[in-house]
Amino acid sequence: MDKSLPNRAIQWQPYTLRLLDQRSLPGCIQFSTITTVQAAHAAIQTMVVRGAPAIGITAAYAVVLSAYAQQDTAWPAACAAIEQDIVYLATARPTAVNLDWALTRMRNCLHQHNHVTQALDALQREAVAIHDEDVAANAKMAELGSAYIAQHSRVMTHCNAGALATGGIGTALGVIRQAHSQGKIEYVLANETRPWLQGARLTAWELAQEQIDVQLVCDSAAAAALQAHAVDWVIVGADRVAANGDAANKIGTLSLAIITRHLGKKFMLVAPVSSIDANTPDGAHIQIEHRPGREVTHIGDQHVSTPEVDAWNPVFDVTPAQLIDLLVTEKGVIEQPDKTKIAALLES
Amino acid sequence: MDKSLPNRAIQWQPYTLRLLDQRSLPGCIQFSTITTVQAAHAAIQTMVVRGAPAIGITAAYAVVLSAYAQQDTAWPAACAAIEQDIVYLATARPTAVNLDWALTRMRNCLHQHNHVTQALDALQREAVAIHDEDVAANAKMAELGSAYIAQHSRVMTHCNAGALATGGIGTALGVIRQAHSQGKIEYVLANETRPWLQGARLTAWELAQEQIDVQLVCDSAAAAALQAHAVDWVIVGADRVAANGDAANKIGTLSLAIITRHLGKKFMLVAPVSSIDANTPDGAHIQIEHRPGREVTHIGDQHVSTPEVDAWNPVFDVTPAQLIDLLVTEKGVIEQPDKTKIAALLES
Repeated sequence: MDKSLPNRAIQWQPYTLRLLDQRSLPGCIQFSTITTVQAAHAAIQTMVVRGAPAIGITAAYAVVLSAYAQQDTAWPAACAAIEQDIVYLATARPTAVNLDWALTRMRNCLHQHNHVTQALDALQREAVAIHDEDVAANAKMAELGSAYIAQHSRVMTHCNAGALATGGIGTALGVIRQAHSQGKIEYVLANETRPWLQGARLTAWELAQEQIDVQLVCDSAAAAALQAHAVDWVIVGADRVAANGDAANKIGTLSLAIITRHLGKKFMLVAPVSSIDANTPDGAHIQIEHRPGREVTHIGDQHVSTPEVDAWNPVFDVTPAQLIDLLVTEKGVIEQPDKTKIAALLES
Repeated sequence: MDKSLPNRAIQWQPYTLRLLDQRSLPGCIQFSTITTVQAAHAAIQTMVVRGAPAIGITAAYAVVLSAYAQQDTAWPAACAAIEQDIVYLATARPTAVNLDWALTRMRNCLHQHNHVTQALDALQREAVAIHDEDVAANAKMAELGSAYIAQHSRVMTHCNAGALATGGIGTALGVIRQAHSQGKIEYVLANETRPWLQGARLTAWELAQEQIDVQLVCDSAAAAALQAHAVDWVIVGADRVAANGDAANKIGTLSLAIITRHLGKKFMLVAPVSSIDANTPDGAHIQIEHRPGREVTHIGDQHVSTPEVDAWNPVFDVTPAQLIDLLVTEKGVIEQPDKTKIAALLES
């Protein structure tokens, strides 16, 4: 298998976006070919593509597709149509701020032009820049975060914050990859991450591709595993970091952060600046997506529970800043993040 | 559907044991008919029957089946053969102390006799007594535990500590049933309990049978759920309580107890005296069963992860006594259990 495959989960050729369909991994490697805004919206909503940075990049390319569809339309009608598509794309999923962040960049780019051909070229350059910058941010975070990891470390991660979730080598998994390449990682424990099993399906697969030793654990086994395996660091990504450092990430991250602190381990959150939302004062203001209970009550098409019973199925939870030992961004690292430190980082 | 069905998960008619096969619930209600010690051992090991008290009751009846098989054998050869079966039965699963406890009672009963016919009658009375006493203990624990639950409570439980796990109405679910019958329970949150999904398959089904409002949550959502649903009590069973109050229970209980304490909720552990092991000084001395990683890497026969990756799959973890707010037994309730209080309870 092509070892570089996870690094190419989002592929752009004018004017087609190819997305590695993450719903069928690792059993089946297939790409979705996206040529319309509607298809991009559906790909984000149905989790063909997931992971906050990857969602942002996908949305950026979707705006290029929007402009391409308007290339025979005169200005300002073309601009209005693209603007409408941007508003529509923002509704695909609510929690990851990278979606809004990328769309805001694309909107700003759009409004610097007054002709659709120029706008199309500029939007494409902007989308590619967003993608390239994410690759670079991943590499920088990997360098900064791995510096905190000692020799002979064992680490745990949750969900998938890897190449499949980003444009590059990943956020949390970027740090783990880098530390592994430095010979510091004994092995990785990956939480299976119900209900979508991103840990079992994606993280285990990504790391196994690179011969990084990884064992799965049930999410509920995290506390026992942190103890029995003498884990040093729990390393996760984020979908939105509020101005005070509270962070929304995959459901289970809050449990994991509480357990990590209680057991005296360290908790590292790795997120690009594009995941920090200065306009959200704290975690209580982050909108948490809920998905159908069927994702829990059924395995595939099979009902595992009883028809009378539904499930409460939030996709994310919010970890308070006080439980985060280290916030790693491409602009720098913050120990014990808070409002003041985050504001200083964003202004630096 | 027969509402009393869960209360008859273990059925005895001389000399046949019928066990409701918990592996195929709730989709399929079928009973395993057990007439040999070997079949009983296999039923425990393969989780046809599970739950610490239910395992103890099953083992007790298995000793009756052993004596029945020896009824044409002279003493002391019959006694030796039964003794050998008792030793064998004790190897079925390691963590639940109720297995040893029930077998010790059966062994003591056996050695009071010197004729196989008398022994058979006495052993059958003893097994039925163990079963009946568990029914009574469940009722008493339900009465004692429910007294601590206030009006308008919301409770969370983990795994299945109900009628399917015991001889009667259950330990944790007995308390919840009783409190519900007193009009105190608004609703129950049941953790799905990977990898066997006892919460989704068994607890949801048991409670739905009795029109108790229950919602499933992924195990990883426990912290978010305790907050969002303003849960008052987390109520679980136990497989073995050490002399100092440390308690082995289904994997995830430790995580749950840590989260519960951190979020300022209350943690109730409900276990009959037969689950307390005075010979185990603390949790570090409890043998934790591990099962094949395949239970995590596969869903049924389908590989959900990647073949290179295995799972670390302990069945239980140990919750330190300090995290247990209330230990409910049929002999009384202990707040903040410790060695001294537990010794006093056992001697009372």
